[in-house]
Amino acid sequence: MVKHTVESCSKAKMAIRDTLDVVGGKWKLVLISVLRSGKKGFNELSREAGISPRILSKELQELEMNGLVSRKVCDTKPVTVQYELTPYSGTLSEVLSAMEKWGYQHRNKIVQGVE
Amino acid sequence: MVKHTVESCSKAKMAIRDTLDVVGGKWKLVLISVLRSGKKGFNELSREAGISPRILSKELQELEMNGLVSRKVCDTKPVTVQYELTPYSGTLSEVLSAMEKWGYQHRNKIVQGVE
Repeated sequence: MVKHTVESCSKAKMAIRDTLDVVGGKWKLVLISVLRSGKKGFNELSREAGISPRILSKELQELEMNGLVSRKVCDTKPVTVQYELTPYSGTLSEVLSAMEKWGYQHRNKIVQGVE
Repeated sequence: MVKHTVESCSKAKMAIRDTLDVVGGKWKLVLISVLRSGKKGFNELSREAGISPRILSKELQELEMNGLVSRKVCDTKPVTVQYELTPYSGTLSEVLSAMEKWGYQHRNKIVQGVE
């Protein structure tokens, strides 16, 4: 058990905020989890994650800027674009698996509460 | 290493989305991390987390609705209200500590990249 002092708490608060600045919001972690199954085209991503193209484009730009997703223009006719996770995005696996676990247990708790 | 199949990925995606529905957004996890140091009044929370009262009130209501924060009206003059974490909020500790760790390492990475 870590002791909660004012100083350690404000450091922790800042670190959590840093993380939320990069992967917070409604979509970024969902996009990362969708891309874990392999690279995808823009429309495919939009469909699988259920995000409108306008928002998806903005989210992907931000993920790219933070080195989590890479964008590859393929020399096809017409030109196609593919998005894939960078190796650096692997550093988020602990965050993702903790959220995944919590999501499961929270859903179970609610389902049990309703029965 | 967990194998990523279509089925396990869509389950994982749903669980992550469930978690984001409850604690996603800009403020909820920050509020929870602020409340980890003990119960707080409304103005204190607003100041410490740097959230406007209007948004804070909405966020606290949602956290209360999901059983993560409890609101206690104290019989003082004038009446004061205190917010504190519920025991259930403790189930989020793994999510919080993973985000804290990631925030630290990401900040270090950026600082090193700039130097």
